Amino acid sequence: MLPTIAWRGRYVIMIDQRKLPGQEVYVRCRTYIQAAQAIEKMVIRGAPAIGIAAAYGVVLGAMSLRGETGRSMARDFEKVFRRLERTRPTARSLFWALERMRAVYERTREAGLRAIRAALLEEARTIEREDAETNRSIGRHGQALLRDGWTVLTHCNAGALATAEYGTALGIVRAAVAEGKSIRVLADETRPFLQGARLTVWELDRDDIPAVLITDGMAGWMMRRGEVDAVVVGADRIARNGDTANKIGTYSLAVLAKENGIPFYVAAPVSTVDPAVADGGGIPIEERGPEEVREIGGRLVTLPYVEVRNPAFDVTPAALITAIVTERGVCRPPYEKSLRP
Amino acid sequence: MLPTIAWRGRYVIMIDQRKLPGQEVYVRCRTYIQAAQAIEKMVIRGAPAIGIAAAYGVVLGAMSLRGETGRSMARDFEKVFRRLERTRPTARSLFWALERMRAVYERTREAGLRAIRAALLEEARTIEREDAETNRSIGRHGQALLRDGWTVLTHCNAGALATAEYGTALGIVRAAVAEGKSIRVLADETRPFLQGARLTVWELDRDDIPAVLITDGMAGWMMRRGEVDAVVVGADRIARNGDTANKIGTYSLAVLAKENGIPFYVAAPVSTVDPAVADGGGIPIEERGPEEVREIGGRLVTLPYVEVRNPAFDVTPAALITAIVTERGVCRPPYEKSLRP
Repeated sequence: MLPTIAWRGRYVIMIDQRKLPGQEVYVRCRTYIQAAQAIEKMVIRGAPAIGIAAAYGVVLGAMSLRGETGRSMARDFEKVFRRLERTRPTARSLFWALERMRAVYERTREAGLRAIRAALLEEARTIEREDAETNRSIGRHGQALLRDGWTVLTHCNAGALATAEYGTALGIVRAAVAEGKSIRVLADETRPFLQGARLTVWELDRDDIPAVLITDGMAGWMMRRGEVDAVVVGADRIARNGDTANKIGTYSLAVLAKENGIPFYVAAPVSTVDPAVADGGGIPIEERGPEEVREIGGRLVTLPYVEVRNPAFDVTPAALITAIVTERGVCRPPYEKSLRP
Repeated sequence: MLPTIAWRGRYVIMIDQRKLPGQEVYVRCRTYIQAAQAIEKMVIRGAPAIGIAAAYGVVLGAMSLRGETGRSMARDFEKVFRRLERTRPTARSLFWALERMRAVYERTREAGLRAIRAALLEEARTIEREDAETNRSIGRHGQALLRDGWTVLTHCNAGALATAEYGTALGIVRAAVAEGKSIRVLADETRPFLQGARLTVWELDRDDIPAVLITDGMAGWMMRRGEVDAVVVGADRIARNGDTANKIGTYSLAVLAKENGIPFYVAAPVSTVDPAVADGGGIPIEERGPEEVREIGGRLVTLPYVEVRNPAFDVTPAALITAIVTERGVCRPPYEKSLRP
């Protein structure tokens, strides 16, 4: 199984997703600040994986406290939660996991630091374990949508590396392959961070699932030429009406899939649905630094001072989404109804 | 004026477009084979510029012949034309320029090598000069389509570097700016070759026209957010019905522009229209080597053995094109009629 993230007693270890596939380097986070920085700098990325990293970040924060009680402890915990909350704004899983951790802290805060720590660690482990189970359920439901011999276009990496294990979009592919279907994945390279070229290609190769790499601008033409049977992507946040924030470029794929009569599926745990957000207009979209666009692998590809836009996500309107696959099943429009808890 | 390509008496010189903007390096071609290789390896690219390079390639070929006459000379010229014709398959300008050069050769073949050479050089110079004039006419007609304060999205580089000078798509922007309009260019980086990040940004910066760089996957989202007023691109080959081959990714932009109610303009000389091709299905699409997708600037970004697709162009159906701007004016649908010679 892929080593996205693991708890190791006194620290959390994660594979450095900025360095794959050239180098398999592991990063150890021994403090909650290191965990927050790992999320910000995209050592770890992918909504569910970020949520798990943040949960362990809270555990690390709790471990760093020394015998405080009462108001001082409450203030310190608040600092930990606030720091982890402001790492990345778009992925719902981050806030969802932190809300779960906060609830556990609130429930155990009178029990003493030792008990709080144990309960927080137990909750973080549960979040991780449930995510693995959730992905297998998503795969089981979603694989029925894919037919033997199909080519599935995917964007970014919604695979094992984006989750505890197995993946959401790639979990559906894995489950279809496990059912004996022959599935080929067309992977968008996904600039600027190249999650498709670096991560999706790498993890599919490890599982012997055929992958073909294209640049992002080729996806539409592949659809037009009849070389794509379905598009399957993950999600960072889903509004109540089904509008879906996902890696920048996803909206374009959805428009192109509609134009070409190709089904467009979103695969994500129910926890990705934000009950506080009615539609896509309410989802905050992270804009990252210009160097990600100006550089590739640390090397400048344009003028050093050129103005850049770098929205990390876009919002695909629910009307362009054929179905949203969660651990509960295949949800069809209207999503207000089918996604309701 | 930008030094895309120039004749220097015994050789042709061109700026190495693979190295911009990091290095301004010039390549001298002293033989027709060097000129052919410069086209193949994309030292020079852009349909009109390729046509000019091929025309000078014929001149270099003629200069290498030594006193032959009759059948032996005909065979040698045939070899030169064939070599230059098989450099790149999609751009109509290449074949159009070679047809003009071939007609001059046929007309002067009885006049002796010296006269043939002089006539071929004169024709190559004419092709270059006419291209510069053509682009200014395209600019003059096309600028009327752009309003003061607009943001124009472009793809690849259809600028001075793609032509003798001034550019087609960017010629329209230049002409609008010359009219006193404030125009901002949103430049797709245009993977795999990064013509947008490397060439469009560089030449607009030299002309003090504001440019903002985005990755290809961001274009759709920028349209959706209302941040694009028009899309203007070049063309490599246009069928009689208006179907347009251009850099891979163009088709996607056209679909996204339609979805968002944004005008989509093609700017190209009339010579881009291929009278032998009824519709886009008849346009040959070059598929280039896998290393362009696997690598960026010579550095591997994925697994070295991953399977890759690399179509260098796609075809935008005429129905998605608001207008095609040529040196004759703004052509509207139906293009069978408006593009007719």
